[in-house]
Amino acid sequence: MTVAKSGLTHLSAGGEAVMVDVSAKVATERIAIASGRIVMRAETLALALSGNASKGDVFGAARIAGIMAAKKTHELIPLCHPLQLTKVGVDLEADAALPGIVVRASAKALGQTGVEMEALTAVSVACLTLYDMLKAVDRGMRIEAIELLQKTGGKSGDWRRDDVEAAKPSEVKAP
Amino acid sequence: MTVAKSGLTHLSAGGEAVMVDVSAKVATERIAIASGRIVMRAETLALALSGNASKGDVFGAARIAGIMAAKKTHELIPLCHPLQLTKVGVDLEADAALPGIVVRASAKALGQTGVEMEALTAVSVACLTLYDMLKAVDRGMRIEAIELLQKTGGKSGDWRRDDVEAAKPSEVKAP
Amino acid sequence: MTVAKSGLTHLSAGGEAVMVDVSAKVATERIAIASGRIVMRAETLALALSGNASKGDVFGAARIAGIMAAKKTHELIPLCHPLQLTKVGVDLEADAALPGIVVRASAKALGQTGVEMEALTAVSVACLTLYDMLKAVDRGMRIEAIELLQKTGGKSGDWRRDDVEAAKPSEVKAP
Amino acid sequence: MTVAKSGLTHLSAGGEAVMVDVSAKVATERIAIASGRIVMRAETLALALSGNASKGDVFGAARIAGIMAAKKTHELIPLCHPLQLTKVGVDLEADAALPGIVVRASAKALGQTGVEMEALTAVSVACLTLYDMLKAVDRGMRIEAIELLQKTGGKSGDWRRDDVEAAKPSEVKAP
Amino acid sequence: MTVAKSGLTHLSAGGEAVMVDVSAKVATERIAIASGRIVMRAETLALALSGNASKGDVFGAARIAGIMAAKKTHELIPLCHPLQLTKVGVDLEADAALPGIVVRASAKALGQTGVEMEALTAVSVACLTLYDMLKAVDRGMRIEAIELLQKTGGKSGDWRRDDVEAAKPSEVKAP
Amino acid sequence: MTVAKSGLTHLSAGGEAVMVDVSAKVATERIAIASGRIVMRAETLALALSGNASKGDVFGAARIAGIMAAKKTHELIPLCHPLQLTKVGVDLEADAALPGIVVRASAKALGQTGVEMEALTAVSVACLTLYDMLKAVDRGMRIEAIELLQKTGGKSGDWRRDDVEAAKPSEVKAP
Repeated sequence: MTVAKSGLTHLSAGGEAVMVDVSAKVATERIAIASGRIVMRAETLALALSGNASKGDVFGAARIAGIMAAKKTHELIPLCHPLQLTKVGVDLEADAALPGIVVRASAKALGQTGVEMEALTAVSVACLTLYDMLKAVDRGMRIEAIELLQKTGGKSGDWRRDDVEAAKPSEVKAP
Repeated sequence: MTVAKSGLTHLSAGGEAVMVDVSAKVATERIAIASGRIVMRAETLALALSGNASKGDVFGAARIAGIMAAKKTHELIPLCHPLQLTKVGVDLEADAALPGIVVRASAKALGQTGVEMEALTAVSVACLTLYDMLKAVDRGMRIEAIELLQKTGGKSGDWRRDDVEAAKPSEVKAP
Repeated sequence: MTVAKSGLTHLSAGGEAVMVDVSAKVATERIAIASGRIVMRAETLALALSGNASKGDVFGAARIAGIMAAKKTHELIPLCHPLQLTKVGVDLEADAALPGIVVRASAKALGQTGVEMEALTAVSVACLTLYDMLKAVDRGMRIEAIELLQKTGGKSGDWRRDDVEAAKPSEVKAP
Repeated sequence: MTVAKSGLTHLSAGGEAVMVDVSAKVATERIAIASGRIVMRAETLALALSGNASKGDVFGAARIAGIMAAKKTHELIPLCHPLQLTKVGVDLEADAALPGIVVRASAKALGQTGVEMEALTAVSVACLTLYDMLKAVDRGMRIEAIELLQKTGGKSGDWRRDDVEAAKPSEVKAP
Repeated sequence: MTVAKSGLTHLSAGGEAVMVDVSAKVATERIAIASGRIVMRAETLALALSGNASKGDVFGAARIAGIMAAKKTHELIPLCHPLQLTKVGVDLEADAALPGIVVRASAKALGQTGVEMEALTAVSVACLTLYDMLKAVDRGMRIEAIELLQKTGGKSGDWRRDDVEAAKPSEVKAP
Repeated sequence: MTVAKSGLTHLSAGGEAVMVDVSAKVATERIAIASGRIVMRAETLALALSGNASKGDVFGAARIAGIMAAKKTHELIPLCHPLQLTKVGVDLEADAALPGIVVRASAKALGQTGVEMEALTAVSVACLTLYDMLKAVDRGMRIEAIELLQKTGGKSGDWRRDDVEAAKPSEVKAP
């Protein structure tokens, strides 16, 4: 595949979708960290945190769903390469100020492609699971700010959201 | 299962996760519509829309990924029931004001449980696919505002975000 | 979805892919039968049929792979509806005249959509499995003539290849 | 596993199916290219190519379905090894002379087993998807000539269909 | 399919595997309950129950894995029909006398086939998950006595292990 | 992740489930062998072994189901790493003394994590498949003694059940 002039590596020169050839890339350690959050009513969060709502299982289900989803990333995203993840972690934290729950996921692999999509997929599915576990009492919840925080490894090198936002503060903000 | 006093139907009285028993519910037509968006740099959107970036395939891949993901919802979300979807549709629209792309998905089934999670999953995976297709030129993109717009059918009846937001305008807004 | 003027129900009026809305269709019994074949060297077929090659397991593996694939049809074909198959059968028969093996599959469901794709997928994957089991001795095998033989049920009614071919004998023949 | 005298590596000496032990094989770059075609009425092809039928999406859906199916090969074919594909590409070309559409797929991996089945699976599922997208107007379409064109890498070395067919022209032809 | 004289409905008269035709069966409510246990060293169980070992998550992970596996039953067991489960529950209980953990699962559906395999699969995968979570400290654990406790619904009617064991006490005991 | 003081590597210091980070481990050849059995009435075994019951296919289906399940281990067990199996074998043997069928599975990979779960999963699903194939004539069958027999490779080194049982004969026996 000749990479399109556009710089979009998932598209051939002819503009057709293709799973990018990474066979010439060196296998290096890849790490990615992503985050997101689900915003809800204060009462919903209080319930999720109370003993009655069994915080353990709501949070536990979301954590496991996120980890399992990371392993399914290449089945969900059409042009993602399958890879052998060496680690996935999902952390959840209640944030009364939102009010809501903040999700953060990390993924790691030794491979020829990055693991950004695995980390982002883990965050997305953990948030969807929280929605599912709590929707009986609050259908108005909203999933927000799913984004990559940092990546390391690979030819394109390291990337950190903080650096980008410091340089161009207003550009990647949601409206 | 005795539904917990908390109102969270996915948790038994003892606080443990369970796939809710819906066998006594009547099968009715269920419809859900959800939306979300991915925010990017203006140049990224311009590229996605230009001939060079083959809009057709970027948009087409995201649409198909969203539809296929809706069918996988019960595999991703631990306590979702499998169901026979009778329709899934995913629409994408460029929005220069964001700048970014707005995604909207609808799901339909004749069944004993709602299809909210199917519509939300379709939106999430379509957004993740857009991220994947465009990330080579813009890692700072952010997925925003994944939310249910409306649902119809089922014992809990119809629900519309507009009604909720009109009544309690500040409560479900993201910060 | 408004069906496109073109008659292609998988495309919306705007030309975009969509999983067709079948919610208004009546659930009727659907049956489809499809066939195909894999053509090989005479020695390959002899080996497959001999005791040394354990005919039972080569044929058994292909039969089971075909049945299991039918259940995965909606995961493989982007716009297929998930459905509850009530029966899948796969038959294989050696044909010395080809030489090769003829595969025939039937699928049945009570549903709002047909099961043609399930039968065709079963045939395709059974043929691929035969290729896989025998490829160590014959990489030149060729899968041929995967086609629908008949379908019954549904609004479009019954269809039989024989009727079509009797009417327009030369049109759907492979070159 | 002792390889059976028959030369069929998927069967043990006792004739039972087994996933061949490839642990002693050297990991080398493996490439495979396969092709196939779907034959249809001239009107069906014309419709697929016309603006009304949204060629982009019919072709785009088939291409993506083929790529995604290649990643599922080891789930579909019972004795295939899971492997980390480094590239999959699917090309489709209308051929008025058939009339129909020719599908060609390539697969690549660094591994201990070949990728022939991945390329053949991509072709098969792309053809099935074309059938699904167009079947509303033409149930008589036929999938033809799914075959390996070439493979490189591995202990058995390179293989090209052209070489085989030049040597034994009549043997692997379909009837 | 003509049911074989042997009484095994998964085999055709010719002895070949087939997914049984259930299309003529009436859809009734099906319930099945199964159980099993994992036996471990007393220290392992103590650790699993202690705060250090985070009982909540070990038990929570097994419960969720069992529920999710029930939904995959038809993908794992070749001749199982896909069905729409209306409920799955998995309960775990520590038993110091074993020492070990007892797993019990229930499954429910309105359908033409029973849900015994779904309940048994949930128990099996919950036990495997417990093994996985605890194997770092005890590789000698053993999964025991996975069995159906009762089923209701369907033409063959209700069945209870207790009745069978009361009638023929020595026949179905493990050695 | 800091490994918890408890020695359970799947739990973080905070007691939350996590997919263990194996990125610093050396890739070595991993082998695991597991076994289990299904106990049934003497008549059921006789039928399974008779010509009428087509032993070939019952045993063949269980063998293939076990092999395919091993490849799905990381989808079933929440915290298992995906890995590239280089071999999976499943053997079944009738044992008139049980009466029943003994299942033994081996798995192999070059990797950073062991393959114990893959071997145990293959045994479990092969047993479940036997149950499914024979349940029409004997619902009282029981799956017994699913256990690891040996593992080699990895930092924790080799392990054999025989050594453990010789040293502590009564401890890991089921009641």
